[in-house]
Order: sequence, then structure tokens, then C-alpha cells
Amino acid sequence: MADHLVSFDTAPEPVRVPTGTLLSEAAKLAGVEITQPCGGQGRCGRCAVQIVSGTVRRRSTLRLSQGDVEAGFALACQTVVEGDVQVLVPPQEKIERRLTTDRTAGEVSVPLGYDYRHDQTIRRTWLTLKPPTLDDQTDDWSRLVTALRQKAHVKNLSITLEQLQMIGDILRADDWRVTAIYETEPGNDPTAPARLIELLPGHIDHDTPFMGLAIDIGTTTVTVWLVDLISGEVKAQLAEYNGQISRGEDVISRIIYASKNGGMDEMRVLIVETINRLIDTACRRAQVEKTSIIKVTIAGNSTMMHLLLGIPAMNIRLSPFVTTVNTLPNIPARELVLDVHPEATVDCLPGVASYVGADITSGVYSSGMNATDKLTLFLDIGTNGEIVLGSRDWLVSVACSAGPAFEGAGVIYGMRATVGAIEELWINDITYEPTYRVIGGVRPRGICGSGLISLLAEMFMTGVLDKGGHLNTSLGNPRIREGEHGMEYVIAWADQSYHGRDISITHVDIDNLLRAKAAIYAGFTVMADRVGVPLEAVEQVLIGGSFGKYINVEKAVQIGLLPDMEWERFQFLGNTAIRGAYHALLDREARERIHDIARRMTYIELSADNTFYEAFTSALFLPHTDMHRFPSVQADFEGRAALKVED
Amino acid sequence: MADHLVSFDTAPEPVRVPTGTLLSEAAKLAGVEITQPCGGQGRCGRCAVQIVSGTVRRRSTLRLSQGDVEAGFALACQTVVEGDVQVLVPPQEKIERRLTTDRTAGEVSVPLGYDYRHDQTIRRTWLTLKPPTLDDQTDDWSRLVTALRQKAHVKNLSITLEQLQMIGDILRADDWRVTAIYETEPGNDPTAPARLIELLPGHIDHDTPFMGLAIDIGTTTVTVWLVDLISGEVKAQLAEYNGQISRGEDVISRIIYASKNGGMDEMRVLIVETINRLIDTACRRAQVEKTSIIKVTIAGNSTMMHLLLGIPAMNIRLSPFVTTVNTLPNIPARELVLDVHPEATVDCLPGVASYVGADITSGVYSSGMNATDKLTLFLDIGTNGEIVLGSRDWLVSVACSAGPAFEGAGVIYGMRATVGAIEELWINDITYEPTYRVIGGVRPRGICGSGLISLLAEMFMTGVLDKGGHLNTSLGNPRIREGEHGMEYVIAWADQSYHGRDISITHVDIDNLLRAKAAIYAGFTVMADRVGVPLEAVEQVLIGGSFGKYINVEKAVQIGLLPDMEWERFQFLGNTAIRGAYHALLDREARERIHDIARRMTYIELSADNTFYEAFTSALFLPHTDMHRFPSVQADFEGRAALKVED
Repeated sequence: MADHLVSFDTAPEPVRVPTGTLLSEAAKLAGVEITQPCGGQGRCGRCAVQIVSGTVRRRSTLRLSQGDVEAGFALACQTVVEGDVQVLVPPQEKIERRLTTDRTAGEVSVPLGYDYRHDQTIRRTWLTLKPPTLDDQTDDWSRLVTALRQKAHVKNLSITLEQLQMIGDILRADDWRVTAIYETEPGNDPTAPARLIELLPGHIDHDTPFMGLAIDIGTTTVTVWLVDLISGEVKAQLAEYNGQISRGEDVISRIIYASKNGGMDEMRVLIVETINRLIDTACRRAQVEKTSIIKVTIAGNSTMMHLLLGIPAMNIRLSPFVTTVNTLPNIPARELVLDVHPEATVDCLPGVASYVGADITSGVYSSGMNATDKLTLFLDIGTNGEIVLGSRDWLVSVACSAGPAFEGAGVIYGMRATVGAIEELWINDITYEPTYRVIGGVRPRGICGSGLISLLAEMFMTGVLDKGGHLNTSLGNPRIREGEHGMEYVIAWADQSYHGRDISITHVDIDNLLRAKAAIYAGFTVMADRVGVPLEAVEQVLIGGSFGKYINVEKAVQIGLLPDMEWERFQFLGNTAIRGAYHALLDREARERIHDIARRMTYIELSADNTFYEAFTSALFLPHTDMHRFPSVQADFEGRAALKVED
Repeated sequence: MADHLVSFDTAPEPVRVPTGTLLSEAAKLAGVEITQPCGGQGRCGRCAVQIVSGTVRRRSTLRLSQGDVEAGFALACQTVVEGDVQVLVPPQEKIERRLTTDRTAGEVSVPLGYDYRHDQTIRRTWLTLKPPTLDDQTDDWSRLVTALRQKAHVKNLSITLEQLQMIGDILRADDWRVTAIYETEPGNDPTAPARLIELLPGHIDHDTPFMGLAIDIGTTTVTVWLVDLISGEVKAQLAEYNGQISRGEDVISRIIYASKNGGMDEMRVLIVETINRLIDTACRRAQVEKTSIIKVTIAGNSTMMHLLLGIPAMNIRLSPFVTTVNTLPNIPARELVLDVHPEATVDCLPGVASYVGADITSGVYSSGMNATDKLTLFLDIGTNGEIVLGSRDWLVSVACSAGPAFEGAGVIYGMRATVGAIEELWINDITYEPTYRVIGGVRPRGICGSGLISLLAEMFMTGVLDKGGHLNTSLGNPRIREGEHGMEYVIAWADQSYHGRDISITHVDIDNLLRAKAAIYAGFTVMADRVGVPLEAVEQVLIGGSFGKYINVEKAVQIGLLPDMEWERFQFLGNTAIRGAYHALLDREARERIHDIARRMTYIELSADNTFYEAFTSALFLPHTDMHRFPSVQADFEGRAALKVED
């Protein structure tokens, strides 16, 4: 194998490496630091470098746009040397900026609905203690307790042994002036215990960062918000794939994996690593120390919560489907090995049942449905579909295993809503030619959730698909063909795609999508039926979940995912779980309400009888076996058919 | 099986029962109430009845003496009918009285004052949970909490993450039958939190050991009592030198050692090792597992407590002499690395000041002075001398650095009160020849605290020592000689000693003893003066501490260690600290009273002005510069002198 010279602009000398060496390896030899938060898997895009001259081979260009590649960018961890190469290492911030400039850029701020005057559980206060004398030999700890009671009316303060070992020195380090960080217990009892988190010598500057972290652990995506506890401002918002995804795409496969020997530890490490990577990035972006994070609130489904805490989850999967715990005690961050202040409180929000977790209780809170008089249907469509019906007076919930199809999994060209994803699509009634809109305006790489709904709706409305979800081969259109994986419809030909391959949707993909939408539709119809409320009585439909913000209602109704009602009744809320966690982080009252929601929400187990299965089977059609449930779709469909006939 | 007639004196009619029926069962049939506080386990002895005639078989006679059995006594719960039987049911009070008479000389028994009905914080209870179904999907933890609330009215149960990780499996291991071990918080609040210590699968046998440990950490000696939490019985009593002793004999030298680099860790390890050795021996002796110890209470002076917990103690030594903490939170045993159940609660009892620690508060409690109307002087003479004056209404305390002379340290042939120690000694007025009593009746190896007091008193009363503590060389007696360490008095010649060396007391030893006794005498006189109470008003003098049980009052008065008053006012209580810890272990109310003592006891700092120093200097004489304070000693001394002159 021939040797090649690789020179980096940030290294004094080139290094000599054989053909096939990774650029990241060459960089290491040259003493050049290249960040690889994803561990060199080509996932995060943070190791992007620019090839000035020379020959390389890119194994993967995930996270790079076509323009990037044309400009010479390459992922150091995915690119091998095939000749002498000159490499430019761009400053890290530049990469960060490029990666995070997505459509949610505007959200880094104090979110809507935040009230500065809210009562937080975490406090930071200056204290000046009276020094001891021979006439006042009060012990250090009592002296501190008294000072905190006088200054801030704190009662029943508790302290760890480790802190007790230090307070003597800390109190004396700046002549009995200290800054106390403590947490008062949630709830309204003024005598409730408070817990000392940290005692610092001196009166620290008011500007010293004082942060909290809200986390939503989704089965597919983990989202964090880094929050200034004083202003309520969100200093960084980040999301990343859940590191467990490589061990199974849905909760069931994760539970199975975790119940194998060593699987639980592995799952726990994977999610903790994901969260710690997000913390690292968020803190670098906000330029704060990780130990400035004093409180963490976590929303997530019950399985994710169990796996994070190392609590066996197999009974979630086995009938009668019970969790080990729905309402968790507060846990110090050190016990979870989270990269924040070791004494930070980790507040895992409460769930209701095995398949209605803290993501739903906090989602319901942030949606406001628990406080409204309007009869509300709340849908959280993620990897699982959870549905809540009710209002201020009552709340019932169901869960249906929708599968991750709308998150892009189980669909060959499915992907998340990032650059290169087809997010909206139209099919010509006559030619069956599609037109589409791609995120980032680049060539398409795949199709995301909203795109899949558009696609399914357009295929059905134009007759590419029949009511049963079968591709209409009789149309004689070249886009409907027998492909590698059976019958398929080609959305983009190879020469129009980013990767030079045809982008298509197969009959298996379509089946997966139909099952997902049928599960959700069956879920809320069976639920409404059980409660004895007609679906038409629903005054508003609030939709949360990772793709909820972007889908087209008309098309979601056309495929029978959403009920057929006036569009004004629908409202898309995006990630409601992280918003709930954010409010619980900052507001004692919000947290209490989320607990109240968890306490009073009734869970209906759909597997308990077979009405759900019947409803599911009926909903496997487009939009449904019973077309009368979708009058607007029927009218539209018949109108189009009439037009075609006229043609 | 044959039937037999059983008649009870307190029942109108006999009952007919088959062979093998328990007397307790027969009593129930006959409508006779027999108390069985231990649940019929043959432990408490309270169901004792007297067999007047007939044949019975005693399965167990625990709690009955040989005499009891000969008198026909039998435990109703452990005795079966084997013929027609006539039974006498004694009044309950009679049994109570018999049980509390401390019949076992070795002290391994239920100590005097123990009340079986006391409310413990630690509980062990069987639970049978309703298994989950599709109609009742309550999570495991809530199911457990509910069961414990229904069975035992436990509210606000808390659990560690580690336990949460296991309860799912434990609950299912024996079909939802479990045994819960938990601790309710001290205090009287019924809604106070409880803490789960362990959950065991199945309903474990009632005989499974369920133990507690009371510890007194003295500067010189560490004492442990291994206690059966159900019967209150002390299963093993052990004491050992504090392992820290090699790093300094008094608290001051320990503090100095601990403040050196690495010294704190070393001190902590040494005391933990000492305790763990004692636990190991105690458990082997009682034949129980170490993990059966579920609760630990610790008494000890403030320095010992700080060093055990790794809390820097240097401010105890430096003016204004403050501790870091007097009232400690409960700590799980795993944090202290004690060899007991890792989740066992370690309850460090509260102290008052740097030199009045938990050994004194628990000592005062077990002495009963906090509950009496009599004006009481409480002395704890260990390595330090702590003195409390007061009664039910008020309590003041002082500490004086007596030094460990009376514990055998700082005296060349000083030793603890074990085999080979001279414990009592007389000197002939004419020949100055000593006679002595040795513990174990062997040849002497050294001299213990009570022996030293005797020695000093006899030397003074016979004129071997003068008022100033100087050896009288003019006597021309060969026992008074210039030795290796200066002037000395030979107590035992080499050929009479255990080790073949002369046993003597040197002038340095005498100085140390005088300083120790002077510190104590000055302590209580200054204290009485400050409070404005004449010493004569003291109605009882209660003496605790490691040697307190064995000293001779007359001789202690002769050297001016104790005030000159009627001997009936003195009472020796032995180790009061360990008794207090024992009661706190078993009785929520006792613990609360110890905390109450700590809260209301006033501490007077003797170093704050110089009256103490003056009193100390005056007390350095035998018995005192002011002989009028010791009229009985003066009379005796003058009487002896007159006799001598007559000779």
C-alpha cells in the first residue's frame, strides 16, 4: 500500500499514512484535535473538515449538504485518504452554527407562558453569619440553619454527610459570608424539608450562571433545554437521536434487549451518554460550566424512564402491563451519573401507566387541556401513539402501539425532518408525477413524517393507491413498478436525488404506515366510545409529538389519521413534553399540576377486550372501511373522480 | 388422640381439648385472656402461667428460671397439654415484676427499665399484595405503598433508587407476598415520612434475627451492645480500646493528628475498624448475620462523633471551641462503611457543645436526672470529665479536661479494669506495706482507676504523701525510693508481680492524677457557684463513666475527687452512655427525650474567665487547700494522726 502525505492547516508538519487511513486517524497522528461527539459514527457531522487538495473517498456524507460536499467538506471520521491531501480544519463554532441553523432557530428565548414570578423550588441566597464567640458557641450547622431560617424562612433544612464534612471550612473561608444553594420540597407546606445543594464561600456574583435542564427522553429523539433559572431564558435547545436506537427502534424491542444479560446496564449507559453529550454541547454553546446546572426535570415515556433509572421494564411488556413505578422520588444527579452538579435534583415527572408516561402528563399540562372547559382530544404521535380525552373536569387516556413509521423508521426512505427530507408532496391527477418540497431546498435524500402523510394522501386521492392500500398497477405508469422489495411507487428518480438512487415507497412501507395511522384512529374512536362521548363533540384537537408541528391536516384527514372535522379545531403544538418539563423546572405550581394530572387521569387498557382490534382492522383502509365517517374526504374524492371521468 | 380437660382458675368452666393443644389455645377456648405481646413466639415471657396439676410438655422455657419451672411455671404459648391440667393464671403485674428483675449477672438480658411496649422506629411486617390485573394496573411501588398503609398506617414511604431497581422482582418472587422492613421517622407526627430499608420475598420466619446495635464511642474504650429488636434482649456486650488510641490518648491529640494531612481519613478508618471488629465478634457470639442489624444508635463525645463522620474537628480545639454539628441527620450505614445492613439507619445521638457530647445527653437520660425533682449532680469521669447539674426543670453542664489518668493512661503502671489490675488497695499505717485485691485473683500487672484512687487516698491518709502530693522521703521506708523516673512508691515487688518487674507509682503519675481530680472538683464547684446553688444542696450524685461502677466513695472523697457528703447520696451507674443509646435504639420516646435534653441543657464555658483556674489550683492539694470543705476527711486524718502519736 502506498503512503501519502496529509497536511492539516492547524498542524506544524504533515503526517505520512497509508492508503485507506481515516482522516480522523491522520489528524490524531498530526496532533490535531477533531471533535467527534458521536464517537466516529458519522452521525453528528461535527468532525467536518475541508479538503483543499488531494484525493479522498467519502464513505458517508450524512449531515453534509450537496453544497458542502461541492465545497470540499468531508466528515473526518468517514473519509479515507487515497493520495496526498491538504486539509483545512474549520473552527468548531462554525460547524456548530451550520448544524444548528434549522427551522427552530427562533425558539432560543424565554418561552411563551413563562412567568418570572413563579415560585421555584431551587433558591440561591447570600448569608452573613454572626461569628461564634465564647458566649455563643452554637455549632456551625445550627448557625447556618438559623441564618437561612431568618433570611429565607427555610425550615427543616437537610444536609448530606459529605457537605457536613466541608461546611466548617467554607463558613470560615470568607469570614462567615457564604452563598447557599438549596431546594425546598415541592408542595405548599411551609414546614416541608429543604435540602442544601451547595454552600459556597463568599457572596458570589449575581451573574454567576444558575442553570436548570429540561429533558424529554423520546424513544427516537432526546431533547434538552438548558435554562437560566433566574430569567427563565432557554440558553440552548438541542436534540439528538436516543443512543439506544441501535438496540431497537421501539420500546418493546428495547425492553427485550434490556432484559438480556447485561442489556439493562448497556441501555442505561447509552441514554446517559446521549444526555451527557447534549449537556456538553448545550453548556459549551451557552458558555456555562456543567456544574452550574442545579436542577433537572425529565419527561419521557415510562419505558424510557425505567431504562434511564436501571429499573427492569419487562413487566411493561407482559400482561397485565404494569410499571415498577409511575411517580419517582427525586434523585441526586450523582446517582444517575449525569454531567451536572452532583447534588442537582433530578425530578422525573410522573407517568400514569406503562404506555402513558411523563411525556403525556407534562404534554397535557403544557397543552393547557387540563385547565380548559372545552372537550379536548390530545394526541401525541411519536413512536407510540398516546391519546388523552377530556378537559378541566376529567381526563382519560389510551395508548396504541403506532410504531415508529411516522418518525421515518420502518420505511425504507423514511428519515427525520432534517435537511434533505421531502416534507410535503403533491401528485398530479393525470400524469401521477410528484412534485415536492425538500427541507433546506436541496436534492431529496428521503421523506419525513409530514411528507409520508402527504404522499399517502396524494396517492390515495389520485388513485395510485386503492382504498385497501394496494398500488394500482393497472395505471401503466412507470413510477408504479416491481422493485427490489416488491411493488413500489418511485417518488424521485436517481438523477434527481441527493445520493443518486431512486427514492421510492414500497408496499411494505405503505402497510407500516397504514398500521400506524389505523392504531391511532382506532385508539381515539374506541376511547370516545368507552367514555360515551361522540367524536363530533370534541371542541379542539391538540397535537403534540415530534412531527406534530408540521403535518398538513387536510392530508392527515384524507388518510384517516385524524378525524374529519373543521380544520380550525386542530392545533399543532410540537414537542409538548419538553415544554411541560420546562415549566416544572421553573414553577412549583406547574409541577404540582402535572402530578395532579397524573393522579386523576384514568387509563383505559385497549388490549383488555377486542373492540380495539375490530376498530383497528376497520381503520386499516383509506381513510376507513366506513367512508361515511369522512364526509369531506368522500366529497373530495368523488369530486376528483367526477373530474377525471369528465377528462 | 385423647381429649383432656383443662381448667383455668379465672374461667368458670374447664375446656376439653386434644393432646398437643397449646395452653394458649385452650385459654382462648375457655375465654381466658392471656397476654402475648410477642405474638406467641415464646420470647417475651408474659404469658407465663402456673401448672397446679396435670401433665404438660414445655417446648421452650425461655425467660423462665429453673426455680420458676420447679414451681410449675410454663409459657402458655410454648406448652402443650398431655393430660387433664389445672392452670393458675397469675396477675399480669406479678409477671412484669419478675421479668424485670435483673437475674443474669452477666448483664446479657433485657436491661432494667426496658418496656416491651415501647414504640420503635424500626418495624418488620408481612404483606400480601393483590396481584395486578388488566383492570388494576397500579404500578408495583404504589401497590406496595398502599399495602403498607393499609396494614401498618405508614404514610409517605420513601425508597432508594437501588431498591426501586429490585422491587419488581421481589414482589413477584413469592407471588406478591413480601416482608417489609422499614423505619418511621422519630417524633410523633403520624404523617412523618417512613423509609423502606429492605423488602424480602415471602413471609420470613418470625424467628429470623432482627437486630439493633447500641454503640458508645469513648476516647479510650468503645462499647457495643447487640440487641434483639423484638424482645429488647441484649444478645452480646463487648468493649475494646478505641483503635485511635495509638494516635493520641486524649481528644486534643486526636484532633491535632486528624488535622494533619491524611490524618482525618486514618482516624476515621481506625474507629470504623474498631467498631467493625466489635460487630464481628458480637454477631459471632450471638450467632446472627451482620446484615440482620437494621439500626444503630451511637453515643460518644463530640470529637469522637466528628472523627467517626470525617468532619474536621479542629474548631473544637480552638477558641471559641465550636463543633461543626451537634445534632446529626440519620445516615445510612453504607455511607459510614459499618458492617451491618447497608441501609441500616445510623442515628448519632445529639450533643450540646464541643466538650459535652452525646455520651452526656444519653447518660443524663439513662441516669434519670432529667426526670427527677431531686437536685442532682451527674459526673461522667472518662478521659474527659463532664459534669451536669440540675433536675427535671433545668440542666447546666461543664467540661473539664481531666485527662485519661483515671483510665490508666499517663500513669506508668496504669491499666484498664481487667484481669491483673489492682482494683483496691490498703496501706499499713505503721509499716507502709500495701495489701491489695487484684481482678481475677492473679498476680498484679498494673493498677486500674479505682485502684489508683485507693492508692492515692491511702498514701495521703497514712502520710506517704503530703497535702501537696509529695512523697515523704523522711519515712525511711524502702518502698519510697528514687527510681528510674524519679521519686516513686513501690506497690508490688518484682517477685510478686505478674511480669517480674516492680510495680510502682511515680511522682509524675501522682501529678497527673492530682490534675485529673482537681479538674473535676474545680468543675463542679465552679459550676455550682455560677448557678448559685450550694454544693450541699445537691441531693444525689450520680456517677457514670467507665470506672464509675467500682470506685470507693470514701477514698474518692479522701483525695478530694468527690465532694464530702453522706455516702448515701452517691450512686454509681457504670456506662450510662451505652444505656442511653440502648434505650434510644428501642424507644422513640427515649430518643426524643435525649434530643430534648440536648436542646435544653445549658453549657458553661469554663475557659471564659479565670475562676476555674483558681479553683483548679486550689484543688491540686489533698484533698484541697481548704481542708474545711472536707470535714469528714479532716476528722479521720486528725484521728489517725492522734493514734500514731499515741503509739
